[in-house]
Amino acid sequence: MLYLVGLGLADEKDITVKGLEIVKKAERVYLEAYTAILLVEKEQLEAYYGRSVEIADREMVESSSDTILADADKVDVAFLVVGDPFGATTHTDLILRARELGIPTQAVPNASIMTGIGCTGLQLYNFGQTISMVFFTDNWRPSSWYEKIVENANIGLHTLVLLDIKVKEPNLEMLARGKIRYEPPRYMTVAQCAQQMIEIEEEKGLGVCAKDALAVGVARVGAQDQNIVAGTLEQLAEADLGRPLHSLVLIGKNTHDLERDYLRAFAVDQKVFDEAWAKNHGSQ
Amino acid sequence: MLYLVGLGLADEKDITVKGLEIVKKAERVYLEAYTAILLVEKEQLEAYYGRSVEIADREMVESSSDTILADADKVDVAFLVVGDPFGATTHTDLILRARELGIPTQAVPNASIMTGIGCTGLQLYNFGQTISMVFFTDNWRPSSWYEKIVENANIGLHTLVLLDIKVKEPNLEMLARGKIRYEPPRYMTVAQCAQQMIEIEEEKGLGVCAKDALAVGVARVGAQDQNIVAGTLEQLAEADLGRPLHSLVLIGKNTHDLERDYLRAFAVDQKVFDEAWAKNHGSQ
Repeated sequence: MLYLVGLGLADEKDITVKGLEIVKKAERVYLEAYTAILLVEKEQLEAYYGRSVEIADREMVESSSDTILADADKVDVAFLVVGDPFGATTHTDLILRARELGIPTQAVPNASIMTGIGCTGLQLYNFGQTISMVFFTDNWRPSSWYEKIVENANIGLHTLVLLDIKVKEPNLEMLARGKIRYEPPRYMTVAQCAQQMIEIEEEKGLGVCAKDALAVGVARVGAQDQNIVAGTLEQLAEADLGRPLHSLVLIGKNTHDLERDYLRAFAVDQKVFDEAWAKNHGSQ
Repeated sequence: MLYLVGLGLADEKDITVKGLEIVKKAERVYLEAYTAILLVEKEQLEAYYGRSVEIADREMVESSSDTILADADKVDVAFLVVGDPFGATTHTDLILRARELGIPTQAVPNASIMTGIGCTGLQLYNFGQTISMVFFTDNWRPSSWYEKIVENANIGLHTLVLLDIKVKEPNLEMLARGKIRYEPPRYMTVAQCAQQMIEIEEEKGLGVCAKDALAVGVARVGAQDQNIVAGTLEQLAEADLGRPLHSLVLIGKNTHDLERDYLRAFAVDQKVFDEAWAKNHGSQ
């Protein structure tokens, strides 16, 4: 059996009891470590599980999945996924490949940032489609997400923005010299995301994510040092929410008073927050 | 401290290790049992936790929250929520009331149907706003959800439909005689939901949830006997997915081939499924 076990969001104790039992008895244990990260190191997981855990990078999961699936029709293999097993397309694809090989599969659900974001007080049924924000470079500034924000905004919905992470990226200079060296991992911050949104708004000009648009940034959801900061994109572009992972929500027009009451406790500046809310986020 | 502990979706072992540790040491333990249910009885939870658990019904949570919050500034109180703690407005409200009383709070995230629905292979970032479907009566057929489906459909998104549950509803005949007797609990099925959607479509006529619209019904997500059935609403109106809880997804036009490949294994009739998919759900 191939088990896809969700690990939840923060640390080694966010696994479910059911998931932990599977990890303890599986023949082999892999940890998917390129679409998201836990806030603890692999060694801490291994110590807690009493098991060695093999890191599965993108290449292994997407090109060499035979290694992961080997003998899984006879023995139990646990594939650990930060958040919920169905959070990323690549995991659905792994189950499809297992199906083709006649390997039975079982997923163990867990918290995902897509529901964990409820910690902001924003109601989950008021969210539209989720978007991803990648690191801009000098000559690559993808902005297809902007249209999705427009679609959500037109019907008054919040937009959850998932932020880029770069792990195991080769250093291009070394690569040109025929050597593979990896860059240190990079995790996009709320401030970087807010800045990129403001820049694209200036190009597109439809007014959905301008400087004065209200948003909320979150860091380390579910951890003891979870951090939530609400404010305009301009304010968030200056905010420091500490270590990864970060996410951001652009707030839609249709809101419930409860959302405002809950969120304003996290405002950078409650006066600015109240004014922006009153202007753009009427009650339903 | 007031802890809101998510229990996940299916049984007593879907609680996280962190959540279980909190339940074991809390002074009092409440179980919210009116917005969703686990698939096991309270007694099974109590045996597993080694603790007695008090059922918190709607009246207690919404009108008598002082009982729940009593002394929570001095002792630990665990409030257990099926799914994720932020899945329902009423829990956000409980945290707000705790804040007003100066009681510290902590939420322990868990799987929610809003991410658990990924078990269908439908990608979570392709979902629009979530809607709720209530039981129609002879003279009450609310249809405000229809407009939200239209909004989602216009931008090609899937719609998750959460189905009504009725627990602890007073028998009206007995109430008229001055006696309080409760009706047996009722849980909406996928078939009932599909039928109601077809009926409202016939009234409104915008073509978003007609008989031939593709949808997927799920039952008991995360449990050993989880059931997934894909088909037209007409087919689902005849489908029997077994015991509660059920949910439904109306499939949007923008899809990924992976979604089709994953989902068709659950089709009532693969030929009907393939034809409907090819007609209405082109690749992105």
